[in-house]
Amino acid sequence: MNDTRIHPLVLFMPSGKRGRFPVGTPVLDAARQLGVYVESVCGGRATCGRCQVSVQEGNFAKHGITSSDDHLSAIGPKEERYDRVRGLPEGRRLSCSALIQGDLVIDVPQDTVINAQVVRKAADERVFDRNAAIRMCYVEVEEPDMEKPLGDLDRLKAALAADWHFDELDVDFHLIPRVQSILRKGEWKVTAGIHKDGEDDRPRLIALYPGLKNEAYGIACDIGSTTIAMHLSSLLSGRTVASAGTSNPQIRFGEDLMSRVSYVMMNPDGREAMTAAVREALNGLIDQVCIEGGVSRTDILDSVFVGNPIMHHLFLGIDPTELGGAPFALAVSGAVKVKSSEIGLSMNEGTRTYVLPCIAGHVGADAAAATLSEGPHRQDEMMLLVDIGTNAEIVLGNRTRVLAASSPTGPAFEGAEISSGQRAAPGAIERVRIDPVTLEPRFRVIGVEPWSNEPGFAEAAAATGVTGICGSGIIEVIAEMYLAGIISEDGVVDGTLAGRSPRILPNGRTFSYLLHDGEPLITVTQNDVRAIQLAKAALYAGVKLLMDKQGVTEVDRIGLAGAFGTFIDPKYAMVLGLIPDCDLSKVKAVGNAAGTGARMCLLNRGYRREIEETVRRIDKIETALEPRFQEHFVAAMALPNKIDPFPNLSAVVTLPERKVLADAAGEGGARRRRRSRD
Amino acid sequence: MNDTRIHPLVLFMPSGKRGRFPVGTPVLDAARQLGVYVESVCGGRATCGRCQVSVQEGNFAKHGITSSDDHLSAIGPKEERYDRVRGLPEGRRLSCSALIQGDLVIDVPQDTVINAQVVRKAADERVFDRNAAIRMCYVEVEEPDMEKPLGDLDRLKAALAADWHFDELDVDFHLIPRVQSILRKGEWKVTAGIHKDGEDDRPRLIALYPGLKNEAYGIACDIGSTTIAMHLSSLLSGRTVASAGTSNPQIRFGEDLMSRVSYVMMNPDGREAMTAAVREALNGLIDQVCIEGGVSRTDILDSVFVGNPIMHHLFLGIDPTELGGAPFALAVSGAVKVKSSEIGLSMNEGTRTYVLPCIAGHVGADAAAATLSEGPHRQDEMMLLVDIGTNAEIVLGNRTRVLAASSPTGPAFEGAEISSGQRAAPGAIERVRIDPVTLEPRFRVIGVEPWSNEPGFAEAAAATGVTGICGSGIIEVIAEMYLAGIISEDGVVDGTLAGRSPRILPNGRTFSYLLHDGEPLITVTQNDVRAIQLAKAALYAGVKLLMDKQGVTEVDRIGLAGAFGTFIDPKYAMVLGLIPDCDLSKVKAVGNAAGTGARMCLLNRGYRREIEETVRRIDKIETALEPRFQEHFVAAMALPNKIDPFPNLSAVVTLPERKVLADAAGEGGARRRRRSRD
Repeated sequence: MNDTRIHPLVLFMPSGKRGRFPVGTPVLDAARQLGVYVESVCGGRATCGRCQVSVQEGNFAKHGITSSDDHLSAIGPKEERYDRVRGLPEGRRLSCSALIQGDLVIDVPQDTVINAQVVRKAADERVFDRNAAIRMCYVEVEEPDMEKPLGDLDRLKAALAADWHFDELDVDFHLIPRVQSILRKGEWKVTAGIHKDGEDDRPRLIALYPGLKNEAYGIACDIGSTTIAMHLSSLLSGRTVASAGTSNPQIRFGEDLMSRVSYVMMNPDGREAMTAAVREALNGLIDQVCIEGGVSRTDILDSVFVGNPIMHHLFLGIDPTELGGAPFALAVSGAVKVKSSEIGLSMNEGTRTYVLPCIAGHVGADAAAATLSEGPHRQDEMMLLVDIGTNAEIVLGNRTRVLAASSPTGPAFEGAEISSGQRAAPGAIERVRIDPVTLEPRFRVIGVEPWSNEPGFAEAAAATGVTGICGSGIIEVIAEMYLAGIISEDGVVDGTLAGRSPRILPNGRTFSYLLHDGEPLITVTQNDVRAIQLAKAALYAGVKLLMDKQGVTEVDRIGLAGAFGTFIDPKYAMVLGLIPDCDLSKVKAVGNAAGTGARMCLLNRGYRREIEETVRRIDKIETALEPRFQEHFVAAMALPNKIDPFPNLSAVVTLPERKVLADAAGEGGARRRRRSRD
Repeated sequence: MNDTRIHPLVLFMPSGKRGRFPVGTPVLDAARQLGVYVESVCGGRATCGRCQVSVQEGNFAKHGITSSDDHLSAIGPKEERYDRVRGLPEGRRLSCSALIQGDLVIDVPQDTVINAQVVRKAADERVFDRNAAIRMCYVEVEEPDMEKPLGDLDRLKAALAADWHFDELDVDFHLIPRVQSILRKGEWKVTAGIHKDGEDDRPRLIALYPGLKNEAYGIACDIGSTTIAMHLSSLLSGRTVASAGTSNPQIRFGEDLMSRVSYVMMNPDGREAMTAAVREALNGLIDQVCIEGGVSRTDILDSVFVGNPIMHHLFLGIDPTELGGAPFALAVSGAVKVKSSEIGLSMNEGTRTYVLPCIAGHVGADAAAATLSEGPHRQDEMMLLVDIGTNAEIVLGNRTRVLAASSPTGPAFEGAEISSGQRAAPGAIERVRIDPVTLEPRFRVIGVEPWSNEPGFAEAAAATGVTGICGSGIIEVIAEMYLAGIISEDGVVDGTLAGRSPRILPNGRTFSYLLHDGEPLITVTQNDVRAIQLAKAALYAGVKLLMDKQGVTEVDRIGLAGAFGTFIDPKYAMVLGLIPDCDLSKVKAVGNAAGTGARMCLLNRGYRREIEETVRRIDKIETALEPRFQEHFVAAMALPNKIDPFPNLSAVVTLPERKVLADAAGEGGARRRRRSRD
């Protein structure tokens, strides 16, 4: 080790980055030089504890006794003091104080809990590499001196340049009238909140706290037309400390997106009213997550928002009228950066807001965020990502090329336009099975544990009643009706079965299926089947169009986003032909992928660049301009589609189902799967 | 000229910059490449007319007939159209359309009047090289297209990148909700106001107008403790189109600076009230200059402010309490950049404000602006720049080194603490002569044409009365009393003269001089003489201290700034010993040098960098910490000072004066002038 010609090799995990450094280099400096993200607030004073690492290999001596073969310096007085005052977990070292003395494997923990109030949320806690747009930087500032009459702010900037290398630093104006009192309150020791988003951006002082401020938070938020979901995360540890959701209060202006655009067009103050409503709801959610997380609003320094184009525009105070008709011009498609206070959000006065880019007039920042989360552009497999609402937002692609489109499914999948349809809420039928021999149904109701044919169902359902069918229920019942032979591949309810089962009821010139003989009576009408056929044909035609553009006849992986995707059974989606054939083990509900993408952008500004670049590269397909869309739409009306074989599906459906499927697929079933070249 | 191996030589005047360019290069492009500032709004479409130049040498053919020896391309259809529609003055060409064809000398006019309403202000119209922080950039934007769903803003940015090379452009958020309607109003033709201050700053879209917007304005403002002065200038032509002034409404909270600081310390809302008062006055002045100049407030896109440290802090909403006592810590000494709307100024929502740096706790942004205007740091001569108020701000230096200090003169020079003192206003005595034989005075009164001994004085003065003595009057009367032998070099009023003249009156144990026997009686008392001695000693001690630090015993040039400097006669200032000896032809009143410096920073951002760099380099001398200041102060009490000989002064005063002076100067008069080496 005394041979200085060969420096020790240091390997950082989990990134695997490695390099050689002179003996005596602090581990933190080595990490920085390699671009390994290790947080530090106190600037190497061994007081913040943020820079903890574990040493997988390499011995280190306890309390100052260094043996000649130690690869890391012994624990010195600074770390001892930190251990005594704050407690250093077994095996952890402060990387600012531990010096390299030999080859090392260093483990960088992905969350370093410092403050006791941080509570771990078990829910969907994906761990991301962190590289937040906010850094907290502790400095000690020179006191004023008549002989060197630099202003207080100027000496603060000098300290930030000396200790943190911010040689050029912009300053939020709101801090200038406060800098003197904060410096004096902190006795010339302060922590600066520095915002730097883009690599070429000049860093900017946006918050200033007296003394050592060892925490900073951010919010990530998905503004849906129906619900708004918000997460509060520590920008230093990456942990989500609280989550909250609420319904979008704009619903009172219009249930669906187009009715909200109409409201703006009809009412002179409509845009202002809807913007105010959503911002008020967001401020309420900020309150909620702050209370739940035990965090002060003024400790939130960054925020990320996503939403579909109309939600995006209304949130930002932009008139969405142009989105209501061709050419569906977005006011802004690129990412938007703004001070949160400029859009009426109350956090810290310096808090920043980042809004992800929109992909197209019908494919919003939420679809961009879902893309970022699921990463078709990061993988070799051809991935289909579908988010179903009034419009289905469809992304299809892989590392080479990503396509996006929206398809006008209408609201049938959400239970609207269905005779017994309703929102997913207690009392709604969400699961259905039909016996192909007796044609008798059994079903499951939201909020009720037993199936309808199981003991105790009536008692359990007394509280909620059986009130209607939600989106996943309607998919299942129509798929089961098809598998049981109640409806033909053309979607016609077979009236000849009325003789075989009392469930088949005449309804004018068509027939209905009686799903639940109660109050209310729940039936599936011929019109209901037609509505679902139209919706699924629109969705599938969009998917198929993108597959054509990609030159593929199958996809390797499917992600179903949003609430609908969470509750739908992929098998039934495939039976109905909502989605193309795919190995069912590779069809996944991806939950609130948009929210996850927002959280990624909050915790790592690198993801912002990634999605901005990806959205620029995405080929946007306007279904209305594509002649083949109409062709596909007509072909996709059948059950399942007449377009492609579904070999994967036939592998998972049960025996009697398989027979029906084989009949339906007809000659297409014999075709070999192949990639088309057109 | 067909030899392409040697490109034509093009010389731009008045800058003298030159270079060789290929035949066919537009003159505007050549100017850009050489860094010669030529305005252009329309981006080379020959519609804005801003890029006009004159051709001193090189023929150019009229109307398309090009002879082989033409050095500039013939006037083409674009210039012809401009000439027809807007009128092109004789000898002018549009540099965007005129192509280099041979050697040329091009004259870049310093103001190119485009809009008829621009009125020339004769007053102090110094012409500066222009390089404003605002550029007006006309573009034609692609219409929205469903197949390329870039947002409207994003297509605008693409157009600005293509035509104006703004590859990275930030956007003020307030424009985002408006971009769609402005683009549609302008039928996809718009003019962008782009702000870029520092060389490394990213350009920023701050304003957007439909169609071609061929004008933009800025204001430059000096916030004095007593008066506020504002100029409105065209950022494109550099012309000042309107000026206005008002008294500072903060006077109602305290006459002088320290009483305003006390007001803040004593009243919980004192700072807010004074900030609101000055901002309200500024908004009033903006209204005034806009009306006078026929300009809309929303066409003002930039603004520059200067003021002493306490005015600077109150304007920016900073508590000035720290400036009231040692160590006189400024909240911020560096230049401040802020959106004008953030500090309550109503112009365009995107208007920027730049505030010059302060030099020290007592030497403000006004002194910095005066320094920029007079440029001691740009010259070899040792220049003294003095601005006299309650504190005298003193700058002394040359290209090598600049020093600054403030000296506590008190308010005597402004007429306060003087028995018959008053502000410079109609009725105030401003000029005085005393006959050294008879001791009879004659004087001149502000607002009255004849001197007091001339015919018609009594009638002319009936309107104003003779109400007191202003600052310049008190300087003259005391200097004349000294030259007439009424006061000794120690400043004692000689009571033995009472027998010779009825003008010498006993006043307790001392004597006064009767200047005007009217209502009120105007006398100069022994206390008045003492007050002026103290004030001038403080000023001179400060000047002398800086001369010591520079190692000089004389200065080459003196600038007297502000209203006091404008009205004071340099000869009397030298007799009294306010200023050191200097060739009287090199002592100049520099008027509102602070306002001029502000205007320079408005019209050329290069001056901002120059003064920021200069202020960083200035050595700040704190008089209170310098033991020699007290020494100099005591020595400077005498009339004139006992410190230095005044050879230049004795060359200009009249014969009887010279005798008195020679006696007073005593042995010092024989000393050779020399540069001290300490």
